[in-house]
Amino acid sequence: MKREKLKVKIIPLGGLNEIGKNITAIEYKEDIVVIDCGLKFPEEDMFGIDIVIPDVSYLLKNKDKVRGIFLTHGHEDHIGALPYILKQLNVPVYGTKLTLGIVETKLKEHGLLSTTELIRVKPRDVIKLQSVSVEFIKTNHSIADSVAIAIHTPMGAVLHTGDFKVDYTPIDGEVMDFARFAELGRKGVLCMMADSTNVERAGYTMSERTVGASFLNIFGKAKGRIIVATFASNIHRIQQIVLAAESLGRKIAVSGRSMENIVQVAIELGYLTVEKDSMVGIDNINKYPNDQIVVITTGSQGEPMSALARMAASEHRKLSIVEGDTIIISATPIPGNEKTVSKVINQLFKKGAEVIYESLAAVHVSGHACQEELKLMHSLVKPKYFIPVHGEYRHLKQHSELAIKLGLPEQNTVIVDNGDIIELSRDAIRKNGTVQSGQIFVDGLGVGDVGNIVLRDRKHLSQDGILTVVVTIEKETGTLVAGPDIISRGFVYVRESEDLMVEAREIVKSVLLDCEEKNITDWATMKSSMRDQLRMYLYEKTKRKPMILPIIMEI
Amino acid sequence: MKREKLKVKIIPLGGLNEIGKNITAIEYKEDIVVIDCGLKFPEEDMFGIDIVIPDVSYLLKNKDKVRGIFLTHGHEDHIGALPYILKQLNVPVYGTKLTLGIVETKLKEHGLLSTTELIRVKPRDVIKLQSVSVEFIKTNHSIADSVAIAIHTPMGAVLHTGDFKVDYTPIDGEVMDFARFAELGRKGVLCMMADSTNVERAGYTMSERTVGASFLNIFGKAKGRIIVATFASNIHRIQQIVLAAESLGRKIAVSGRSMENIVQVAIELGYLTVEKDSMVGIDNINKYPNDQIVVITTGSQGEPMSALARMAASEHRKLSIVEGDTIIISATPIPGNEKTVSKVINQLFKKGAEVIYESLAAVHVSGHACQEELKLMHSLVKPKYFIPVHGEYRHLKQHSELAIKLGLPEQNTVIVDNGDIIELSRDAIRKNGTVQSGQIFVDGLGVGDVGNIVLRDRKHLSQDGILTVVVTIEKETGTLVAGPDIISRGFVYVRESEDLMVEAREIVKSVLLDCEEKNITDWATMKSSMRDQLRMYLYEKTKRKPMILPIIMEI
Repeated sequence: MKREKLKVKIIPLGGLNEIGKNITAIEYKEDIVVIDCGLKFPEEDMFGIDIVIPDVSYLLKNKDKVRGIFLTHGHEDHIGALPYILKQLNVPVYGTKLTLGIVETKLKEHGLLSTTELIRVKPRDVIKLQSVSVEFIKTNHSIADSVAIAIHTPMGAVLHTGDFKVDYTPIDGEVMDFARFAELGRKGVLCMMADSTNVERAGYTMSERTVGASFLNIFGKAKGRIIVATFASNIHRIQQIVLAAESLGRKIAVSGRSMENIVQVAIELGYLTVEKDSMVGIDNINKYPNDQIVVITTGSQGEPMSALARMAASEHRKLSIVEGDTIIISATPIPGNEKTVSKVINQLFKKGAEVIYESLAAVHVSGHACQEELKLMHSLVKPKYFIPVHGEYRHLKQHSELAIKLGLPEQNTVIVDNGDIIELSRDAIRKNGTVQSGQIFVDGLGVGDVGNIVLRDRKHLSQDGILTVVVTIEKETGTLVAGPDIISRGFVYVRESEDLMVEAREIVKSVLLDCEEKNITDWATMKSSMRDQLRMYLYEKTKRKPMILPIIMEI
Repeated sequence: MKREKLKVKIIPLGGLNEIGKNITAIEYKEDIVVIDCGLKFPEEDMFGIDIVIPDVSYLLKNKDKVRGIFLTHGHEDHIGALPYILKQLNVPVYGTKLTLGIVETKLKEHGLLSTTELIRVKPRDVIKLQSVSVEFIKTNHSIADSVAIAIHTPMGAVLHTGDFKVDYTPIDGEVMDFARFAELGRKGVLCMMADSTNVERAGYTMSERTVGASFLNIFGKAKGRIIVATFASNIHRIQQIVLAAESLGRKIAVSGRSMENIVQVAIELGYLTVEKDSMVGIDNINKYPNDQIVVITTGSQGEPMSALARMAASEHRKLSIVEGDTIIISATPIPGNEKTVSKVINQLFKKGAEVIYESLAAVHVSGHACQEELKLMHSLVKPKYFIPVHGEYRHLKQHSELAIKLGLPEQNTVIVDNGDIIELSRDAIRKNGTVQSGQIFVDGLGVGDVGNIVLRDRKHLSQDGILTVVVTIEKETGTLVAGPDIISRGFVYVRESEDLMVEAREIVKSVLLDCEEKNITDWATMKSSMRDQLRMYLYEKTKRKPMILPIIMEI
């Protein structure tokens, strides 16, 4: 019993075998440290779902032990579930200045700001808990102020890299804290968890600064307005757009709600430097000649409601794309978004704009470490045990192979899944059981009220629609007194299907007659006969399988 | 009037501003030549649609002029609509040996083989029609036996490249007919239409032969079974898999219906050479040691019902993936398929297989010309006018810019859309009106019976489901005698929503009472009141907008 307690437990509750909803619990004695609390955007087959958040039942069951949520950086897949989880689990939230700045905006929208304890930290800060301490270590990523987190336990240190890349020339001049990673490595790290996103890519990720050079080049040639779409959270990218604009004397306007929010936060907190009078409101851009304007906007993923998509579709109220505009899409489509991005590009080209995107110029770099950078991290930290995180299985698998190639004994790395309990002692790593984990769907105001049955129905409805059959029968005799009425939606053009519906009604009538004859009065049997007969008939006639919904009314 | 008749008309009915359903009509005097007759796979938002075919109303209206459908190659996006179009327009189909071999299989399935006139041609053949003649010219592509088509008219030649790449070392040794393209160029080509698919890619597409070198390398290292997924139609790829297998003494099995079909056709027609006794049935692979087996299979796009996807999901009846298997995905995901491919890769890795795909090794090359190859084609053919085809707007635009950079006067290239009539004379090109064109949805047995209303309903249903409200009222008095019954599907978990449903029923009752008081008896008004009241209530409570279907029964 006593030995059991002395183990460090690592329990990932999200982020493994998926992209998104990153959250990991690290437990030692009476302390649980939670790293990140992210959301996931819905998969294609999650019809109607707005966002997906992690199932944190395990944390709720162990409420008293949870010392706080410790954030590595301010991306949605690391902070987006906070408003939902904090409602159930009111614990302090630790993060760097910009990260908390973004969290604040989010909590304000959910009315949670006054009830949440936000604790601002900076790199090299150490938070002492009961049996462990938590240290923040500077990294580089596609958002400013990102950190790795080390949890120091009596068994040794557990290091979580967070999302990172190696950038020797970052925009803010703050290179990741190689010295501290090396020092931890020298002292001995028990276990490292590291970002696997780009493990399939050879070589190095380019420095963010290279994008700035491309901007200067493209901006210098542009004859009209310049519109740049990028991720709102990429403050360094935005800084480079601002610098390029200012160097050419162009005014800068911002469009898109999330872009406006984050730019404001970043300026207030000192993460974005803009010359006095450089900024103009989006309402005022027409007061300047076209060649004196740069617009920074959202929509780099082609999101249908984003500012850029609205411009492309002529639905933006403040800005119409005209011939001579130069539009830069400074991002790469996230897998699954290729088609929406392509649609926006086509629309913009059709309006006569010049459109510049990744396949045409170096207007984007990744925020994640490629193979050579991962090797550097492994070589600095030299962990005894290694758990690849932040990726699908293919990434985790290849990251563990990379570690083995660097000399890690094969038995010292494990590929784990959400909900797995990984136990660490000084000389062993093993999976030992699981806790409840999974995905909770958020749909409108509902959190968790849509599950697999509802999704299965939505999918069914989306494929072949629905056919509702209503009959009113006399209670005593079972005789049909009204109907059958058949109404379909999403099945077939009504005018094309009259014969089909006439025949379907006849089928229902004969089912009812048959039931009457056989003295079948229970509704379940009647309904399932209707359903079966109709299904067979419709499939034979159309090779489609609409949902069939029989309703019996009784008077 | 007389001058009008002397123009060549080019009327693309599909394939522009989209990927798929390639079909173009070329008209001169009393002849219409149709090039290709392809299908398109449904977009993400075309719920439940199986395939999309072109609207050929224009051809039906001008039936007497249509001399035939002339095929460039045997890919689905060039031949897939034939079974549907031939039912309405029974004209001869011209194609090379392999192309017609694939078409035959397709027509057989649709019971059209006996009623269709198939005319086999070979490169350099010329078909003389009334006022024009049609010539076939050898090209290279990711399917064997592909050709460009030149239509010789008294006004000059119109050249359609079909899909092509430049491969100096093709697997069958038959390099594209540079001499004939150059000769046409020397004599003068009035107008060229050329493949724009890869116009965004700099440089050259690698030779198909480079993939064979990768296969030999990977096969040589594999310790267990080798399973290669690729496009069934890529006979040259399959030939290279066969050669690599044979060089190592491995037996070859084929899995997947389309793969089995095409391999059989290709062997019969002499496009695929397999040593005697090399092939074994998929049922017999377990009779051989694992390191003596290569399986060629479908599913390189992660298609859920494909052989590879079934293997990955442990649903394949003949083959279970085991540790030690090496699986090669010899294809690149078509935009939109990234996630399904990734899912299959993850599943295969989890089963302990080695998985090799494009980002890890050179196991695929494109079938389309990159920029330098396009420049070669333009430089050989030197057309007077140029129409970029086979691409989205972004590709067409960039292809026209490439032509202009090569010296084509800007006014000599036009970007056109499906349905545009392009008129060509010896010294002018211009758009002059449009004909009906568009997409016809095929869903099960229905061709064209699903349109935008049905799709809009399916989309609505997929997002928030449906709520059916049924009431039975007394005809004379309008009094409620049964109901309201409310049944929802795809909206919310029933057990979570009891209060919601109770309240919804009350709302319907009060609407009916209100109608009774105001003496409103027309159903349309009653239904729309129910719908409005319920919509408001549900949106307020859930922020969702299910479809609401009120049904009134009268007794």
